[in-house]
Amino acid sequence: MTEALAPFQRLEHQSVLFEDGLALDCGAVVMPLKVAYRTYGRLNAARSNAVLVCHALTGDQYVAERHPLTGKPGWWEAVVGPGKPIDTDRYFVICANVLGGCMGSSGPPEEMTDAEGRGLGRPWGTDFPSITIRDMVRAQKRLVDHLGIGRLLAVVGGSMGGMQVLEWAATYPEMMVAAAPIATASYHSAQNIAFHEVGRAAIHGDPDWKGGRYWEDGRIPAKGLSVARMVAHITYLSEAALTRKFGRKLRGASALTFLEDVFEVESYLRYQGSTFVRRFDANSYLTITRAMDYFDLASEHGGEVAAAFRGSPIRFLVTSFSSDWLFPTVESRALVRALNAAAANVSFIEIATDKGHDAFLLDEPVFHRALGGFLQGAAERAGV
Amino acid sequence: MTEALAPFQRLEHQSVLFEDGLALDCGAVVMPLKVAYRTYGRLNAARSNAVLVCHALTGDQYVAERHPLTGKPGWWEAVVGPGKPIDTDRYFVICANVLGGCMGSSGPPEEMTDAEGRGLGRPWGTDFPSITIRDMVRAQKRLVDHLGIGRLLAVVGGSMGGMQVLEWAATYPEMMVAAAPIATASYHSAQNIAFHEVGRAAIHGDPDWKGGRYWEDGRIPAKGLSVARMVAHITYLSEAALTRKFGRKLRGASALTFLEDVFEVESYLRYQGSTFVRRFDANSYLTITRAMDYFDLASEHGGEVAAAFRGSPIRFLVTSFSSDWLFPTVESRALVRALNAAAANVSFIEIATDKGHDAFLLDEPVFHRALGGFLQGAAERAGV
Repeated sequence: MTEALAPFQRLEHQSVLFEDGLALDCGAVVMPLKVAYRTYGRLNAARSNAVLVCHALTGDQYVAERHPLTGKPGWWEAVVGPGKPIDTDRYFVICANVLGGCMGSSGPPEEMTDAEGRGLGRPWGTDFPSITIRDMVRAQKRLVDHLGIGRLLAVVGGSMGGMQVLEWAATYPEMMVAAAPIATASYHSAQNIAFHEVGRAAIHGDPDWKGGRYWEDGRIPAKGLSVARMVAHITYLSEAALTRKFGRKLRGASALTFLEDVFEVESYLRYQGSTFVRRFDANSYLTITRAMDYFDLASEHGGEVAAAFRGSPIRFLVTSFSSDWLFPTVESRALVRALNAAAANVSFIEIATDKGHDAFLLDEPVFHRALGGFLQGAAERAGV
Repeated sequence: MTEALAPFQRLEHQSVLFEDGLALDCGAVVMPLKVAYRTYGRLNAARSNAVLVCHALTGDQYVAERHPLTGKPGWWEAVVGPGKPIDTDRYFVICANVLGGCMGSSGPPEEMTDAEGRGLGRPWGTDFPSITIRDMVRAQKRLVDHLGIGRLLAVVGGSMGGMQVLEWAATYPEMMVAAAPIATASYHSAQNIAFHEVGRAAIHGDPDWKGGRYWEDGRIPAKGLSVARMVAHITYLSEAALTRKFGRKLRGASALTFLEDVFEVESYLRYQGSTFVRRFDANSYLTITRAMDYFDLASEHGGEVAAAFRGSPIRFLVTSFSSDWLFPTVESRALVRALNAAAANVSFIEIATDKGHDAFLLDEPVFHRALGGFLQGAAERAGV
């Protein structure tokens, strides 16, 4: 491609190419299919110790190592690593950049291809087909096959990662021993769709988005994407967390000014927005938020979530966080009821915390002990 | 002014001009001060039956009559009118457009003046000084004086209107018999500031905002203001209300599309955004949201809310709504505790509803009976 490249497009990622492509729910085929991924730990001889980690909306495959773009620690180093709940001394951990993402898997910023898979010299942009959570999972399944793993010890993920866990369990129940959907739900709620729509409207409204063709002049819709990130970020935190972090603390003097940031929380949000645009693609954000909005397990299974899990051999651990208002405990309870109705093997924990949705990424010892113990139990039963 | 006028600037409003201007908390003086207002019902001979209604962020003085711009009913006709809780057969109801607003009171879209009050042939725009809720209340006080009313029977308002009620009670306790702050709090929370900041960032990011000078070419920052309205609108509803209204209902076919609105809730929000920009000024939105963010009664009274009300002769009715997450009941309870600590006369009701913050504007019979009874009691004690 000859156009200006965003920083995330200039990176080299470990990836695998599937020349035959991937047929999507919408009817289109992405050909070839590229899946970028990282692994941690060693696959044992029996190939029985693999744990697939599914990332959230703005996550990526760099789970437990320095991020190549930001230089920050991996997004789940609190949970994945030597001696951690997902113990890389014991398990072989796989994480793939989701289909539609912007860190090396097939997605809007990658080079567009024709029906025969020939490169067209421009990014997909908004011509990238609509995808679903199930499409993401199908792409991961190709990777798992490619790695020669017939059965995963566990599939684990939070938020949109949890949606993928549920879709994995519904679609490939024989390919996994255990499933840990965290801070998630069996559908995306009207309120969550609404918040996503605000973010999309902000991106669409940015003239630098240029109908999705912003690569043409090397500018990105930074303001729109930043606003999208700001509103999403609020939903990841609780009121208590925001208050503890910032309260009504003023920046510097308490002068009444019209334009400047006045409160600490404003500067923080603006900072969140401005750093995000350097590492994430606006068209990927549109694609992935839409995939989340489409997610509704019941509608894929005759209107009943339980039907997705009937006869499932999988052991489930469902986790919610008490102050999470994006995926509130009530939605996890509904999921647990459906799993029980399907006679599935399910445990449920609600972690008491005031950290909001983000708690699944943070230092939550009770959650970490529960997840670690759950995986250990699965490993023992599987003879790992 | 020679520039293109927005629809709300072409209206004629009933108003009063105070040539000596208004000194603001920030140190600036708005000269002259214009207060646009509407009244309903008749002032009795004793001038003792006046009820001041304070409007919310995007409300205006057209409480109980057809709106001159939208043609819709007044914003509080459920509550104000003949035989309604605020009974215009019995009370003389006053409502002023807030200082900083865009329906005729001094504010960003009005003509800018110099220190001597001479018109400068352009709107204030972002040169309008920073204002506070207390400044709004001081402007209303001038109107009440002008109307020859020494003591209001009650000051009533919801949301930002409730902030004004509290500020009235703290600043002019001898000028009112009763106060009904509704769906409000004694301070604006970090989360609410954060949501406001998203809206402001969306307006600032719209190139048509032009640093606030959008009147110069007759365009308005419609996309940014629309996004601001969309995110605010979500916070006015509850998840239950959104789900009841829209759930995950798709518009028309369930085709997977990239750009179009797919869910009903999206179309609704976009509609809310697009209609709002025709009736509201972006710079007013910036000014007023900032005034709300500054609001913190405790900080104005030595760090203690109770200090604002010590020895107050006013009777208070504090109302919250169970599903309001913008001004949750817990904040009303804190206010009630402070009023009790000040030995004030206070009643508190939490209305059970799933309609969210917007409930204060809607058909809520229990709330309406309580408010009507409260005013009637105040009127009887005041000999009205």
